[in-house]
Amino acid sequence: MQIVDVIDPDDERLDDFRDLNSVDRRPDLPVLPGGALGKGLVIAEGVLVVERMVASRFAPHAFLGVNRRLDELSTSLVPTADPGAVPFFRASAEVMAEVVGFHLNRGVLGVARRPAELTAEQAIDGATIVAVLEGVNDHENIGSIFRNAAGLGVDAVLFGSGCADPLYRRCVRVSMGHALLMPFAKLPQWPRELDLLGERGMTTVSLTPDPTVPLLPEAVDGVGKVAFLVGAEGPGLTAAAMRASHVRARIPMSRGTDSLNVATAAAIAFYELARR
Amino acid sequence: MQIVDVIDPDDERLDDFRDLNSVDRRPDLPVLPGGALGKGLVIAEGVLVVERMVASRFAPHAFLGVNRRLDELSTSLVPTADPGAVPFFRASAEVMAEVVGFHLNRGVLGVARRPAELTAEQAIDGATIVAVLEGVNDHENIGSIFRNAAGLGVDAVLFGSGCADPLYRRCVRVSMGHALLMPFAKLPQWPRELDLLGERGMTTVSLTPDPTVPLLPEAVDGVGKVAFLVGAEGPGLTAAAMRASHVRARIPMSRGTDSLNVATAAAIAFYELARR
Repeated sequence: MQIVDVIDPDDERLDDFRDLNSVDRRPDLPVLPGGALGKGLVIAEGVLVVERMVASRFAPHAFLGVNRRLDELSTSLVPTADPGAVPFFRASAEVMAEVVGFHLNRGVLGVARRPAELTAEQAIDGATIVAVLEGVNDHENIGSIFRNAAGLGVDAVLFGSGCADPLYRRCVRVSMGHALLMPFAKLPQWPRELDLLGERGMTTVSLTPDPTVPLLPEAVDGVGKVAFLVGAEGPGLTAAAMRASHVRARIPMSRGTDSLNVATAAAIAFYELARR
Repeated sequence: MQIVDVIDPDDERLDDFRDLNSVDRRPDLPVLPGGALGKGLVIAEGVLVVERMVASRFAPHAFLGVNRRLDELSTSLVPTADPGAVPFFRASAEVMAEVVGFHLNRGVLGVARRPAELTAEQAIDGATIVAVLEGVNDHENIGSIFRNAAGLGVDAVLFGSGCADPLYRRCVRVSMGHALLMPFAKLPQWPRELDLLGERGMTTVSLTPDPTVPLLPEAVDGVGKVAFLVGAEGPGLTAAAMRASHVRARIPMSRGTDSLNVATAAAIAFYELARR
């Protein structure tokens, strides 16, 4: 990377970092069909997540940060005088705050263009454990699921209908950058495309609080490759998704309590495989 | 409860619900030694949590809500003309917003005075599974731990040093009201008071990402009554807390990943017992 000092918050070279919290101008809004709406960028925040972005298929084309974070990053990203190198725009915390629209205490950002989306086949190539989400429209939950999946041995994440954008800034942050590292893909033909998993020898397991279905340890006993389906808190998985999966499973819950948060339920399912 | 219509947001009878987000006037700030600081109240939000407050040892002395939520609550709380009954202050959403300081989309609140704190002996009386927290100073994490504990068969929660207030409004909300229903207590003599658990036949198990300690399933294999110790994300448990516990255990994690969120790690530990 090439260090470039900036002092003017209106510098156009910083436009990809501008108004990060804006509802309609934030740079991480996806480009919709027809080219409308967003810039389709991906934002990484903080030293750890920026380093993970660099290691990912989301190649950053610019950084913006304060000098202290530059020093921390310099152990993994080597500064160079090459004018063709990716620029690190070095600024004061005040200039950064003016650009992004708030005080960003992580002090450094990376920005990348979204590469072509992986196909489902590409995302699950070689995978033995997959997480499949339906109707999970909360960015924080999606980020937590990526984080839990990465920590507990899951190989890929697939998105059925009704899910929020996994490359939204908050999602990337909560995932600790694992949304960038872990292969993921959408299944637009939902839930029909679940067949893809069965064809690759995976058992598809729908998680449900339904007390009449087998307990999780029993449901996955002896199975090899597994895809866990989880639905949004409250409605859970649709009947169509459950019908399209091979087995249903429930986490043992105390009477008179609510279902678990979707990311917590997913973590428990991942752990059931990781523990053996 | 007795229905009392209010139209004036400055009505003094609503003072216990006032400025819920204020840093220094919010009613759920604890009363500190010497009587300073807060009112020491507990706030429940939403129909489900208010109903759980009614069922808990935190007896509400007033409610504030819109008519629609009153209707929902009336199935569990019977309106009466008795002037000695607990008042339900019925107001418009606009008056409510002026009182609490923001638009509260859950539409109903209950407020209770904090009763005497339970002793640790009282909280763990009859318990077979206990969660023990050290340095968990994030209200959302504490709320999630209560929710996960209630769902996964934990009987009580104990707080070591450095934890945030479990009766803070956000904590009660995230816990889905289980912070009010589940017995909890502080351990001011930390970590010495962990001895209390051993004396009652409990095995104290410290969760740590340390790769040299036994895996969780092995560590709790064959043990009966268990207390799980969890520390804050990042620093984890102190060495003193780990030394004071009987065994250490780790959740199997993938290489190159971070430790799990503390509430997720706790949920996995609770599940390891619930699954058997």
